[in-house]
Amino acid sequence: MKDYPLSKVYQLLEPGPVVLLTTAHRGKANVMTMSWHMMVEFTPPLVACVVSEANWSFAALRSTGECVIAVPAKKLAAKAVNVGNSSGRDIDKFSAFGLTPVPAKEVGPPLVAECFANLECRVRDPRLVTKYNIFILEVVKAWIDTAQKRPKTIHHKGSGVFVVDGPELRLKSRMP
Amino acid sequence: MKDYPLSKVYQLLEPGPVVLLTTAHRGKANVMTMSWHMMVEFTPPLVACVVSEANWSFAALRSTGECVIAVPAKKLAAKAVNVGNSSGRDIDKFSAFGLTPVPAKEVGPPLVAECFANLECRVRDPRLVTKYNIFILEVVKAWIDTAQKRPKTIHHKGSGVFVVDGPELRLKSRMP
Repeated sequence: MKDYPLSKVYQLLEPGPVVLLTTAHRGKANVMTMSWHMMVEFTPPLVACVVSEANWSFAALRSTGECVIAVPAKKLAAKAVNVGNSSGRDIDKFSAFGLTPVPAKEVGPPLVAECFANLECRVRDPRLVTKYNIFILEVVKAWIDTAQKRPKTIHHKGSGVFVVDGPELRLKSRMP
Repeated sequence: MKDYPLSKVYQLLEPGPVVLLTTAHRGKANVMTMSWHMMVEFTPPLVACVVSEANWSFAALRSTGECVIAVPAKKLAAKAVNVGNSSGRDIDKFSAFGLTPVPAKEVGPPLVAECFANLECRVRDPRLVTKYNIFILEVVKAWIDTAQKRPKTIHHKGSGVFVVDGPELRLKSRMP
């Protein structure tokens, strides 16, 4: 995996892909599946996400203030669903589903080797956690797997229906 | 346009489409393009979004506390980009780009007739507006245009590159 510029992190998350979120707490790493996230700022890249207190990851994220957002391509869709259908309370999801944890550089939770992008994050503002389970994260380090060419991401439409990235459109936008 | 159940609103926004956001202030309606949004709660549907204070819509949204999120299909991609490239300071974007405002039922800002879904929203929590431009909205009424069959949405990857919805994948998920 290679360094990815923080100023381009929005290009990974703005299109709304299903992502994985890793945490580590008391010596155990865990991973969950997440679709409720959005960009908040370009530089430094800020990301908001919802991690429900019903998720096993919630306590780890709240107490350590660290996570990794990993972006899976289409070939990992079935694994992402398996991750979402199970809990770290019961199993080690990395070994159960054949995902490889790789040490991160800036944070405790691991990268996911099979994902084409990995974003190391720290909780920057927990003010909306209690009421809405919203965490404001800062991406402090980003990685890209350049061996995965033009990865297609997946988007959840509810009840196990996912839409895969289709063709690209290029239009003259003045926006970043 | 027909009623759309509030309990299924997440199926429209969770996949991360580019949306339009309308406001109305001092007798004038406006519309902007937005990709920074996420679901926060299923029922009642809560949505977080970022509307920068650099946007002309910001003052309208903050002072009226009302907006409509309208979801365009692929055929509106060029119009959505035109809306994003211009400001309501300078022009009436509805007439300039051939979008039809339709009165909403619960809020002041208009629906966009050409969009396949329209969500009438009220600001529910402005606590993060000052620091992050994040508005927490509640969707109070939702509409669907059933004449638009299987609409394909668009997702912004940055700098005018959009990815259009491709094929669907169906996987056994226990999640809503």
